[in-house]
Amino acid sequence: MVTEDCLRRVEEPVPVPAAGEVLLRVLSLSVDPTNRVWMREADSYLPAVEIGEVVRAAGIAQVVESRREGFAPGDLVLGMPGWQDYWLLQGDDLANVVPPGLEINDLLSIYGSTGVTAWFGIEDVCDLQPGEVVVVSGAAGGVGSVAGQLAKIKGAGLVVGIAGSDEKCRWVVDELGFDACINYKAESVPDRLAALCPDGIDVYFDNVGGEILEAVLGNLAVGARIACCGAISTYNADEPVGVRNTDNLIMKRARMQGFLILDYVDQFLDAILGLAPLVAEGRITYATQEVDGLEHAPETLNRLFTGDHTGKLIVKVADPT
Amino acid sequence: MVTEDCLRRVEEPVPVPAAGEVLLRVLSLSVDPTNRVWMREADSYLPAVEIGEVVRAAGIAQVVESRREGFAPGDLVLGMPGWQDYWLLQGDDLANVVPPGLEINDLLSIYGSTGVTAWFGIEDVCDLQPGEVVVVSGAAGGVGSVAGQLAKIKGAGLVVGIAGSDEKCRWVVDELGFDACINYKAESVPDRLAALCPDGIDVYFDNVGGEILEAVLGNLAVGARIACCGAISTYNADEPVGVRNTDNLIMKRARMQGFLILDYVDQFLDAILGLAPLVAEGRITYATQEVDGLEHAPETLNRLFTGDHTGKLIVKVADPT
Repeated sequence: MVTEDCLRRVEEPVPVPAAGEVLLRVLSLSVDPTNRVWMREADSYLPAVEIGEVVRAAGIAQVVESRREGFAPGDLVLGMPGWQDYWLLQGDDLANVVPPGLEINDLLSIYGSTGVTAWFGIEDVCDLQPGEVVVVSGAAGGVGSVAGQLAKIKGAGLVVGIAGSDEKCRWVVDELGFDACINYKAESVPDRLAALCPDGIDVYFDNVGGEILEAVLGNLAVGARIACCGAISTYNADEPVGVRNTDNLIMKRARMQGFLILDYVDQFLDAILGLAPLVAEGRITYATQEVDGLEHAPETLNRLFTGDHTGKLIVKVADPT
Repeated sequence: MVTEDCLRRVEEPVPVPAAGEVLLRVLSLSVDPTNRVWMREADSYLPAVEIGEVVRAAGIAQVVESRREGFAPGDLVLGMPGWQDYWLLQGDDLANVVPPGLEINDLLSIYGSTGVTAWFGIEDVCDLQPGEVVVVSGAAGGVGSVAGQLAKIKGAGLVVGIAGSDEKCRWVVDELGFDACINYKAESVPDRLAALCPDGIDVYFDNVGGEILEAVLGNLAVGARIACCGAISTYNADEPVGVRNTDNLIMKRARMQGFLILDYVDQFLDAILGLAPLVAEGRITYATQEVDGLEHAPETLNRLFTGDHTGKLIVKVADPT
């Protein structure tokens, strides 16, 4: 867990943008499991956040003062502002002005990293065929909740979620339309998977890794595909639990494929244009939980790991003007 | 390990073929890690061998008496004769008459399951690109020794083997032409991989699973591919060691793909026609170790797991007539 003693609150004067820079007011921050990955000592797909740096996080910010073409005061910008009140956009920092008319929380959830991750996982990585048996872990989370619905829309024969409470399981089945949901804190995942998927699992959308990954590997269908999207069960672990049955990939001629939406940046718009009509038609339900105040960012990040949330967690820092 | 008390030697009259059946004398048996997989209690990609059944094994047998069209006395047949002196071919038992002029030991090694597995692993599963960094475990074994050489022939920039003795490592480098070989029993595999492959591993041909798989996962290049061919480190284990860093598949957007040559039966001839000129030109070196006598089959199988062999192990049961 991230505890208060890992972090320091620092007050500094609001920076003044130099030529080519933009000053932005941070409005809302995306709370994602990968924030915790970036805080680990070792580099991941991005360099580790260094001691003394601002905690890295995606979010929406609003231009206050711009000395760069393409950014005007009042514009909403999607980028990596981090856990701070003001963001000085410099150099080649990732930043895109977003079109007007979209809700900030939608930009950080269904049209942000979570919705878009679910889209490319299902559309590109899983190679899902009509009628196939799909399992989604983290099924009540920001990514998993959308992934399972997209799998149904693409014609999956059965979509089984895995989540951490009876209440989440009810939401996943009753509101999102999954066919079933396993409460991994109360039920035996291997036993329930065997009962629900007697002919094996064709597609697994993995958000958690660890023991649940092992349980799914133990019940694969021949030719199964596993989209490795996240491994939240391991991010806080000093000594992660090992997966003991990777040899089932051989027995079942199955594939595990890791992916990151960073590799799909050029295709983001395709995903958004694909998701928007499904949202408009009411065919995709999604949830956001907003926590007010930057000071609550650490405890909000921890809620991803305790499971004390449903859908996408967002920390609101300020209102737009 | 397979001990004598797991098995029973039974003497029975030589069977008499009924209509549609063929009686064959077993000549040579292929000794493969997968034989041990078939002896486990659980079904794998084939049903487990039942208590009381003949131990399943591929091999070459010669027709003694045929009551089936297409099989004539004296024909050499590649199939699954198992650990016995005479094989009664029935029903849809896998069996193919092999063309004359090929050595029996070649049919069970370079043109048999080991060579053909290496071929499809490198040609089809690994998606190997010129200049890439390749690691092969079980590098002195029947499959690994050929896989590494095929990778070099396909233009790999660096091929690193992993094997279990200095003598094997010397053979792998000096005779087979790998660029380097790590003795996993004497050296730290993670440290040596980091030193030999500072930019990461693009392709891993995995014959062993377990700790060595974990070491490779810890040093992947972005976009890496792992061909899961075998997991010999786990086949004898009551409680296999878990792989703790499968989340590196996400960080590196990497793929693990299991495969079995059973899925390539229709393309066997392509592999043999691809391998034959390389063998004829002396571009592929392979080794077979022949053990004389069916009674030595159990201890010979165990040598796969102790590492007391180089190349392909074959049990010779009888000479052809």
